[in-house]
Amino acid sequence: MSGPTSLSLRAAAQQIAAKRLSAADYAAAWLARIEAREAEIGAWQYVDRDTVLTAARRCDDEAPRGPLHGLPIAVKDLIDTVGLPTEYGSPIYKGHRPAADAACVALARAAGAFGLGKTITTEFAYFSPGKTVNPHNPAHTPGGSSSGSAAAVAAGMAPLAFGTQTAGSILRPASYCGVVGYKPTFGLIPRAGIKSLAESLDTVGVIARTVEDAAFFVGVLTGRGALRDVAAAPAPRIGFCRTPMWDEAEPATVAALDRARGALLAAGARVEDVAVPAEHRGLVTAQDTVMAYEMARALADERVRHGDLISPALAQLFDRGLTIGPEVYDAARAEAAMARQRLPAFFADCAAVVVPAAPGEAPAGHAYTGNPVFNRMWTLLGTPAVTIPAGSGTAGLPIGVQLVGRVGDDAALMAAALFSERAFAVAA
Amino acid sequence: MSGPTSLSLRAAAQQIAAKRLSAADYAAAWLARIEAREAEIGAWQYVDRDTVLTAARRCDDEAPRGPLHGLPIAVKDLIDTVGLPTEYGSPIYKGHRPAADAACVALARAAGAFGLGKTITTEFAYFSPGKTVNPHNPAHTPGGSSSGSAAAVAAGMAPLAFGTQTAGSILRPASYCGVVGYKPTFGLIPRAGIKSLAESLDTVGVIARTVEDAAFFVGVLTGRGALRDVAAAPAPRIGFCRTPMWDEAEPATVAALDRARGALLAAGARVEDVAVPAEHRGLVTAQDTVMAYEMARALADERVRHGDLISPALAQLFDRGLTIGPEVYDAARAEAAMARQRLPAFFADCAAVVVPAAPGEAPAGHAYTGNPVFNRMWTLLGTPAVTIPAGSGTAGLPIGVQLVGRVGDDAALMAAALFSERAFAVAA
Repeated sequence: MSGPTSLSLRAAAQQIAAKRLSAADYAAAWLARIEAREAEIGAWQYVDRDTVLTAARRCDDEAPRGPLHGLPIAVKDLIDTVGLPTEYGSPIYKGHRPAADAACVALARAAGAFGLGKTITTEFAYFSPGKTVNPHNPAHTPGGSSSGSAAAVAAGMAPLAFGTQTAGSILRPASYCGVVGYKPTFGLIPRAGIKSLAESLDTVGVIARTVEDAAFFVGVLTGRGALRDVAAAPAPRIGFCRTPMWDEAEPATVAALDRARGALLAAGARVEDVAVPAEHRGLVTAQDTVMAYEMARALADERVRHGDLISPALAQLFDRGLTIGPEVYDAARAEAAMARQRLPAFFADCAAVVVPAAPGEAPAGHAYTGNPVFNRMWTLLGTPAVTIPAGSGTAGLPIGVQLVGRVGDDAALMAAALFSERAFAVAA
Repeated sequence: MSGPTSLSLRAAAQQIAAKRLSAADYAAAWLARIEAREAEIGAWQYVDRDTVLTAARRCDDEAPRGPLHGLPIAVKDLIDTVGLPTEYGSPIYKGHRPAADAACVALARAAGAFGLGKTITTEFAYFSPGKTVNPHNPAHTPGGSSSGSAAAVAAGMAPLAFGTQTAGSILRPASYCGVVGYKPTFGLIPRAGIKSLAESLDTVGVIARTVEDAAFFVGVLTGRGALRDVAAAPAPRIGFCRTPMWDEAEPATVAALDRARGALLAAGARVEDVAVPAEHRGLVTAQDTVMAYEMARALADERVRHGDLISPALAQLFDRGLTIGPEVYDAARAEAAMARQRLPAFFADCAAVVVPAAPGEAPAGHAYTGNPVFNRMWTLLGTPAVTIPAGSGTAGLPIGVQLVGRVGDDAALMAAALFSERAFAVAA
């Protein structure tokens, strides 16, 4: 890629604000990429050239509204947009037009951005996939549920995309597609206007090309200057953790973590092994319990009134969720609360801990979006996490590693992530 | 009241299920009450006789779906309903028709209930009031934001109503209207499909005629048998707390707490004074900080695109919320988290602690829905709380007391509340 689409988000917005780049030209460059790749990739649920160019021209005509001025952003179709249909990956909502933008979209607009289109989500962000394929090999899944967001950014069709994560829906597809996925601390980005699946877990985040773009965008959106302007940590202390799910790590993931360790050491990081407390072994199950229980209730209207339009996989989740008693659910949440209290000791002096982002490369086929086993625990705990591309596996597909940070200290995590991203690039 | 409207919710549903009472007759009795009182009270945003009777007749024709079979429930107009307009108390949403029922409504339907109509909320559940007056004296406010829900139940126009609370929007209007208001533990009832205002605070609850009705309904809705079938605690240990806001308590509230103490002692409760930890003095301010910060962001779309349709009071809140920096917001949330950890020591052996529900009787006039100062702290802490009617004040208006319980132990709170309700009735 060259030309305006190769600029960082910050640089593109600055050039547009300074009238050195027209927002219309910038948008047109992304639309050209979409025209070139979308037929193969299928990342978009909805994109309309005229709507995009009209919004871009308006940016050219008006004074800059904020640091995102003129940036066209992809929006996962689990997120309400007033100007574009929002279908949540379900035929129940065919042609649905929400009455308001989700808060995250409205905040992006208020800072000058606008919607580039809606990206494919699995059905209600669970496991039944949409039409999207992996840009690196169309015979493989892009992962999910933020399938279209990850594929669109990976295929160069969008500079950044909103995603959401309830189990592993940002970090896993980012790993499969070779892009950066950033799930901020639980609650950092408001969830108003996003289809509610599991209130204890649902987290809004982004898929981006670089750690800097992700931190800049979320920093602007949330008014957090330390995140917006994050610089690489000079010599971060980074933990490596063979999580309790280590048996699920395929050779490609084991090798990626080994390479990451070598690259970090070579770049001057202080690397040490850390261990998840033994009590955390049950957290993957606890996450699954909370998710099934809450989804069966949050989607009660769809479950009861539209049972014929629910996929078998989701119907099974509902059945399972309804058999979980309140005492089991309460115990899972209590287990998570206890585990959160042990996190400071787990991190000790580490700014970030490296764990697998996914079991391995993107699985072949399109019926299955892959296993979120390495993400569930961290989503339940509410820690910020970021997937950074870290080479490729034996099938030649990308693979990422996941850096997990302290709750509420997203800036420190992203500073360590910037350092790591550069270290991996040098080693590659 | 006599006839079917005098039955408890459980008894009415049982009689309908046993075909000893027709759901249509039961609904018609409530509709007759609405016809008699609504012109004076203005509790309803939307109610349609034919829709209600059609739903009731369907209940008569089908096998009982669950323990709420045939019960017509009022729904605060902050809560999405697919069959009825949902306007959130704002002209921005005039005629808005959501695509789905909120989860709480769908769960109530799945248990056999149906909607009686939508009750007036203040503008986005903040302070700009709707048309509702206090059923005990139309020159006074009913309180808010669940104004219509409290007034409808108080005027005998609905057996039970959904409400929501972000500061004091269930407990305060219940006190002003002389009915029971029950805000469960934070998160007990799912929030999917409720207009999101402040994610850290928004809580779904109910306004009811009795503690038993409130516990039964919420127990069924959440599948929590201990709550559904709660019995009065035999001789509960109940704390009395002069909260840090005691200076705001008017003589009517001081007298109501004194009467409550006497009644509880006479009924055999073990009563003791408890003190809020000194560190909790800042929680009222912290709640206000969290609410302003989150509402200014959750309602970003309405704020940016519809500024001309926002009331001055809400615009002021937005302005204030936007000036709060993330570090101030983070500090307020951290203060709340620390305070939650001190709650077990605060409650010690008490099943519930009695505090004021409101500063005094309902203020005169309709421009102001009263002060939630006695509710803010407990909403921030996520404790379950219930307002129980406890006599009247010098203006002859009702006054309630608030019982606060341990997080997650709603059944114990409601057992103490049942005991208290009976004790107050004997003393009256």
